[in-house]
Amino acid sequence: MQLAMIGLGRMGANMVRRLMRHGHTCVVYDVNPQAVEALVAEGATGASSLADLASKLTPPRAAWIMVPEKFTESTVSGVADVLSKGDCIIDGGNSYFKDDLRRAAALEPRGIDYVDVGTSGGVWGLERGYCLMIGGKTEVVTRLSPIFETLAPGIGEIPRTPGRSGEPIAAERGFLHCGRAGSGHFVKMVHNGIEYGLMQAYAEGFDIMRHAADASLPEGRRLELDLPGIAEVWRRGSVVSSWLLDLTAQALVEDPALARYSGFVQDSGEGRWTVEAAIEQAVPADVLAASLFARFRSRQEHTFAEKVLSAMREKFGGHTEPKAPGGGAR
Amino acid sequence: MQLAMIGLGRMGANMVRRLMRHGHTCVVYDVNPQAVEALVAEGATGASSLADLASKLTPPRAAWIMVPEKFTESTVSGVADVLSKGDCIIDGGNSYFKDDLRRAAALEPRGIDYVDVGTSGGVWGLERGYCLMIGGKTEVVTRLSPIFETLAPGIGEIPRTPGRSGEPIAAERGFLHCGRAGSGHFVKMVHNGIEYGLMQAYAEGFDIMRHAADASLPEGRRLELDLPGIAEVWRRGSVVSSWLLDLTAQALVEDPALARYSGFVQDSGEGRWTVEAAIEQAVPADVLAASLFARFRSRQEHTFAEKVLSAMREKFGGHTEPKAPGGGAR
Amino acid sequence: MQLAMIGLGRMGANMVRRLMRHGHTCVVYDVNPQAVEALVAEGATGASSLADLASKLTPPRAAWIMVPEKFTESTVSGVADVLSKGDCIIDGGNSYFKDDLRRAAALEPRGIDYVDVGTSGGVWGLERGYCLMIGGKTEVVTRLSPIFETLAPGIGEIPRTPGRSGEPIAAERGFLHCGRAGSGHFVKMVHNGIEYGLMQAYAEGFDIMRHAADASLPEGRRLELDLPGIAEVWRRGSVVSSWLLDLTAQALVEDPALARYSGFVQDSGEGRWTVEAAIEQAVPADVLAASLFARFRSRQEHTFAEKVLSAMREKFGGHTEPKAPGGGAR
Amino acid sequence: MQLAMIGLGRMGANMVRRLMRHGHTCVVYDVNPQAVEALVAEGATGASSLADLASKLTPPRAAWIMVPEKFTESTVSGVADVLSKGDCIIDGGNSYFKDDLRRAAALEPRGIDYVDVGTSGGVWGLERGYCLMIGGKTEVVTRLSPIFETLAPGIGEIPRTPGRSGEPIAAERGFLHCGRAGSGHFVKMVHNGIEYGLMQAYAEGFDIMRHAADASLPEGRRLELDLPGIAEVWRRGSVVSSWLLDLTAQALVEDPALARYSGFVQDSGEGRWTVEAAIEQAVPADVLAASLFARFRSRQEHTFAEKVLSAMREKFGGHTEPKAPGGGAR
Repeated sequence: MQLAMIGLGRMGANMVRRLMRHGHTCVVYDVNPQAVEALVAEGATGASSLADLASKLTPPRAAWIMVPEKFTESTVSGVADVLSKGDCIIDGGNSYFKDDLRRAAALEPRGIDYVDVGTSGGVWGLERGYCLMIGGKTEVVTRLSPIFETLAPGIGEIPRTPGRSGEPIAAERGFLHCGRAGSGHFVKMVHNGIEYGLMQAYAEGFDIMRHAADASLPEGRRLELDLPGIAEVWRRGSVVSSWLLDLTAQALVEDPALARYSGFVQDSGEGRWTVEAAIEQAVPADVLAASLFARFRSRQEHTFAEKVLSAMREKFGGHTEPKAPGGGAR
Repeated sequence: MQLAMIGLGRMGANMVRRLMRHGHTCVVYDVNPQAVEALVAEGATGASSLADLASKLTPPRAAWIMVPEKFTESTVSGVADVLSKGDCIIDGGNSYFKDDLRRAAALEPRGIDYVDVGTSGGVWGLERGYCLMIGGKTEVVTRLSPIFETLAPGIGEIPRTPGRSGEPIAAERGFLHCGRAGSGHFVKMVHNGIEYGLMQAYAEGFDIMRHAADASLPEGRRLELDLPGIAEVWRRGSVVSSWLLDLTAQALVEDPALARYSGFVQDSGEGRWTVEAAIEQAVPADVLAASLFARFRSRQEHTFAEKVLSAMREKFGGHTEPKAPGGGAR
Repeated sequence: MQLAMIGLGRMGANMVRRLMRHGHTCVVYDVNPQAVEALVAEGATGASSLADLASKLTPPRAAWIMVPEKFTESTVSGVADVLSKGDCIIDGGNSYFKDDLRRAAALEPRGIDYVDVGTSGGVWGLERGYCLMIGGKTEVVTRLSPIFETLAPGIGEIPRTPGRSGEPIAAERGFLHCGRAGSGHFVKMVHNGIEYGLMQAYAEGFDIMRHAADASLPEGRRLELDLPGIAEVWRRGSVVSSWLLDLTAQALVEDPALARYSGFVQDSGEGRWTVEAAIEQAVPADVLAASLFARFRSRQEHTFAEKVLSAMREKFGGHTEPKAPGGGAR
Repeated sequence: MQLAMIGLGRMGANMVRRLMRHGHTCVVYDVNPQAVEALVAEGATGASSLADLASKLTPPRAAWIMVPEKFTESTVSGVADVLSKGDCIIDGGNSYFKDDLRRAAALEPRGIDYVDVGTSGGVWGLERGYCLMIGGKTEVVTRLSPIFETLAPGIGEIPRTPGRSGEPIAAERGFLHCGRAGSGHFVKMVHNGIEYGLMQAYAEGFDIMRHAADASLPEGRRLELDLPGIAEVWRRGSVVSSWLLDLTAQALVEDPALARYSGFVQDSGEGRWTVEAAIEQAVPADVLAASLFARFRSRQEHTFAEKVLSAMREKFGGHTEPKAPGGGAR
């Protein structure tokens, strides 16, 4: 079927490629004309403006927005202005679900449907397919199913979950209609919150194993451990096997000390929003919050909090700070 | 090759089965004679005592101990007493690595080698194979390789880690010589510590999604989410795919509200030891510790700590406790 | 000077009493006429409506609002409607600082000043005075100083901070102009966030000491500790002495096992907002967040998260849940 | 009464001074003869060796050991060798309570009593007195009471805990017999664990207030807050008033930005042991553990864990690290 794609960065462009490979027709637009030209060369129909884009679509139109979060609001407005009753806007970016709730409500009186799609798969999506978490009205999501079917990874070689039988449901083919508008990004948000927690769990474990050889430990206690081998062996038959572990194994093969990484770790909105959702719902989320804070901490040389601690220690105990850092020093 | 197995519980018995299926010879012993008989019926050689067991082995003897942690110490002693110089003891249970360090040092003057093997794979090991983390002297581990090779899952259908080439190393076949005695259980310990963290990350995420429909939230904010579908869709192409997620998906298909679980969560020594190792090494382990504490908390109706909080609140603010529990109440 | 008080609950009524004792004139209003009558009997001027209240004040009017958070918004609107240019509204409740920012901006064009005052002191304020954290324009805060001076505890017998000299500043007399509108509640918010952390630190410590006598510990390890005595001795000369400790000592004298508390611990908005502010600013706040989550957890019998853990454990290891709770069980 | 003091560092020397001021007789020893001479000049009896010290004491002898933790074991042994049945050793340092349990048991057959005393008060003890937490046999602790009475702060001007009446108990005078040997250091250990938690709570709160003026926040949201004033005002009437807050107020008066502290924060054994005790007892101690980990983190430029996170992020999302640190960056 026909789909408009607005925003031709890595994600948007690769989605267009995956769709065209499977026979869909794409009309594409980006603020950067060269990005449009590149996909036109691969078979897409180019548009020179949002109005031009709208004119090249057959109603009911479907426009997928794949732009950086800070441009989503203005792009949704701009696209809505060139669409009509019965058309729909799909936000495939990383919007905050409360923005989806608001936008869907605002577009409702104009008869424009709003669908939010959280996607996971990163740079691997073109090849592996994108895991899609979708929010919106049932009839609209159903109409768009051929698009989702193509973007999703499909059933693949993953063993079926025991207890499931009959025709595989959409979730088994890699896309899920999670609920009303906002649900897709809510589920994607929690997905990323979980992702932070999983990553931090592995990270702490490898840190402990790396420190097992610390000179500060008593000699009889020290152990030299082969981290790349450990990541590798855990990939087979262990309880902690996962895709994130696969990636860790890859990184450790390339650089066992991970020396080329400094360790400044960024975070995106989803991790923050997940903890905020937990707070709003009074759900304990110790691990998700701790994972987020570890990232905040990684980006500072020292926190003001640590200086407050040093100041108190000096005042009550006359303690002065060590001259040099050291993990094992007390 | 020939192996003695002491301890024929689920794990030990299944290991014997897997070994025999692949042509190894097993001499088996258990304090429960019926457990011995059962495996004799499947082709193993039974022993009526540790001395009998030793007499049925050809030197250099290899005796694998697979007993509950509290019996490990006495069993190692008992087995060592019937073995001789050049023989080896393999502890396949969940020993504390510091006990391994001590036992290996104690057996050293007697010429008996000590090998510790951490195993992961749970009830799935007979079928999938056991992920093996091994500590001990290189020559002994090498001599025992045919055993490890058989118990391990093998290379299977798991895609090779990019960057690895040539003949697959042992880790790719599912077993790893991690380092000197103690290393196997150290790595297994951290493995379980990570496992707790991963589990808690998923658990918190699903808790937040379940609460998205909470009556305490403003109506425009509530979302009804399909948890079994979400677990399923994440299995395909998402960053959080893992074996633990596969199991969660299975549990949610069977019982979407998980109503048959009360939520008392036990912990084993490994999770505790991992946090203690982190403390010993001055490694921050916020997520692993929080995961452990969540389990401690799950087994109490109320902590004394919470009563202290209630008492303080009453004293400074005249606050009384709510009459009934409630997640969203303040 | 003259002050209007709207909201005559425990806090508002006691503030009126403290002000009148020191010669200020108060015009009072509450939705409950009996609350008005009670204070009229003590010397206040009663008002039968907000309009009546406004008519009994001499410009520039100052109206202090001390109502439950959920009524603050409508009360501010109602009061603003009966005031005029040059008057001011003081919100002494527990408003969210972002609401202060919004309200101050909304009242600005009408020439009505908005002052937000965070207060700490709980039920002890009438006697000890209220610690006041104030946000608003300098000239307005200065004009209201006589009110703040009276409500605040004053310099008291607390030793002066080394490094301070000369005439005691307002903060030493118990009130502080923190910054522009919103600042008072922001500081009060963080104050409460810290309070949660302090409380949880004591609570965990006493929990550990109570468990020192646990039957699950090896006999040679068990210690019977006198908790009321410990709280008492720490009050004198120890690093952890504080007012919260004083209150804990009092509670433990009355009931050493704190048996009359169930341990359901409520939380108010401030603790939540503090963690959200930390997230907004990318500041690690592990302790403040953990303290909040401990309260969330205290109000649930079991979390869904814990059921997810139980389900995973059953699936990978065949582990079943313990039949009964128990702190030390594994 | 007569007391021997072994170890004349700041703490030991000041204790001798405080004792002599109140009429006690002290025999003193230190490996550094100059430390001995200094106190002899102030009225103490000097000893040139442990044997000399023992010969100058009247049975039943009481020898207080106040040496750095790493010398405690050997000093206890050395002192025990010059004492006799009926004498007692007091360990006033920061020993691990399990070492006390072991030492008391080892000295028992020799008839030498072992008393452990945890002390809090830091550099302020000479002036304010030391808060003493004592473990040992009742008769021995009773015999030593005059010493404890003098070292402790006494009842002072601290208001009596409501509910207490009659003659003030020892705890109200600043010392407590907590239980059998080991109890004193156990209580001191938990005291320090709590101390870490309290400090971290304040530290995080001040960090959040400092970031309220962050350039990364939207302009309408920024607040400039006066941290020294805030610490000061909280000292009067607020729920968070404490001695640690007093010290923070002092540090902030001297240096509002705390610029002279780098923020490397050391930890001593007690904080670690407290978390280990919590783990041993299956008590959730989220705040105490998080406080400890924050100190570990403060002493490293980057953790290996953070590099693992960066590596994963690169592998799944092509994310590269920011070039420069920044608290608010994502």
